[in-house]
Amino acid sequence: MWSKEEIIDYLKDNLKESRYIHTMGVVQCAIKLAKLNNIDPKRAEIAALIHDAAKYMDIEKQKKIIKDHGYDIDEVMEESPQLLHGFTASILGKDMMGIEDEELLSSVRYHTTGKKIMTTLEKIIYIADYIEPNRNFPGVEDLRKITFDNLDEGVLQGLSNSIIYVVKNGNMIHPLSLEARNYLISQKNKSIL
Amino acid sequence: MWSKEEIIDYLKDNLKESRYIHTMGVVQCAIKLAKLNNIDPKRAEIAALIHDAAKYMDIEKQKKIIKDHGYDIDEVMEESPQLLHGFTASILGKDMMGIEDEELLSSVRYHTTGKKIMTTLEKIIYIADYIEPNRNFPGVEDLRKITFDNLDEGVLQGLSNSIIYVVKNGNMIHPLSLEARNYLISQKNKSIL
Repeated sequence: MWSKEEIIDYLKDNLKESRYIHTMGVVQCAIKLAKLNNIDPKRAEIAALIHDAAKYMDIEKQKKIIKDHGYDIDEVMEESPQLLHGFTASILGKDMMGIEDEELLSSVRYHTTGKKIMTTLEKIIYIADYIEPNRNFPGVEDLRKITFDNLDEGVLQGLSNSIIYVVKNGNMIHPLSLEARNYLISQKNKSIL
Repeated sequence: MWSKEEIIDYLKDNLKESRYIHTMGVVQCAIKLAKLNNIDPKRAEIAALIHDAAKYMDIEKQKKIIKDHGYDIDEVMEESPQLLHGFTASILGKDMMGIEDEELLSSVRYHTTGKKIMTTLEKIIYIADYIEPNRNFPGVEDLRKITFDNLDEGVLQGLSNSIIYVVKNGNMIHPLSLEARNYLISQKNKSIL
C-alpha cells in the first residue's frame, strides 16, 4: 500500500491548490470526528486524503474506469458527472494505491451522494467534506456544532442542505441521497418512539 | 357511475367547508388546463372533484382499504400518512362511485406524490391542486403563469417547491416525487440537445 507521503505527492501533482487545501481540511476534520466516534483516526485520515483524488480526471476517462470495474453509471450521474469522482477515487485507492480496507474505500465512493445505510466512517467522510474548516457558507458554524454533538444529526442536516441546493440549481437528486436521508429520519423516529 | 351531483353531495357530507372550496378551485383550474392541453375537460373535472374525497377518512381505515386493494404502504407513507388519501380516493372512485377510467383514477392516486412518467391528465391534476385560485403562497402567481405557458415546466417547478418544503419540514421525500422530477429534467435536457 502507498505510504501517506506517496498519496500526498499524488495529490500535489493532481489537484489544484485550493482543492489540496480543502483536502487537508477534510483530513483534519475527519480525524477529529473519528476520535469522537471511536473510529481509528488513521483510517479516517487515508479516506479523507483520497476522497477527491479523481476530482480533475477527465469525465470520459472516469466513466470508462467506473464501467470497467463493473459499476453502472445511472441517469443522474450521466446528468451530473461531478457525482462520478468518488467512485473513481475509490477505484484508484484500491488498484493504484493498494488500499484493501473495503469500508474505507466505500466511504470514498459514496462521499458525494451518501447511501441508504452508512457506517460511522462513511458518515464521517460525508460530513467532514461538508464542514471542514475552509468551508464557508451560511449556517456552516451551526452544522459544525450539530455534527460534533451528534454525527447522525449532522449528516441528516448535510443531506437536507445538499438536496435543497441541488433542487434550487435545477439538477437531479441522486436516489442514494434520498435513501440516506429517509433512512436517518426513520432511525430517528424509531429512537424517539 | 355516480352523477356529478351525487359526487358533490358526497363531498359536502365528507369534506370540511375549506376543503370543499379548495376542491372547487381545483375543478376550475383543471378544466382550464385540460382545454389548453387538449384533454377532455369532463375527465379533468371528475378527477379534480374526487381528488381529496378521502382527505378526512381515518388513517387506519385508509391503510386497510389500500392494503385490501393490493397496494403496498411503503415506509414514507407510513411516516407521512397524508400521502395516503390519493390512493384511497382512487379506490373510492372505482369501487363506490363506479368510475372505470383508469387514467383518471391514476391522476387521483398520484396527485400528491407525482410519479415517474405522468400523462397529461396526471400532470393537470397534480399541478391544479397546487395552483388553484384559493392557494396563496409566495410565488404562486409565477407558478400559475409558468404552468399556463408550459404544463411540464409548471409540474417541474411544483415538484421542486414541494420537495424543498418537505425537506425543510424534516419529512421524508417520497421516491415517486424524486422520480417524477428527475424524469421531467431528463426530458427537458433531451429536448434542448
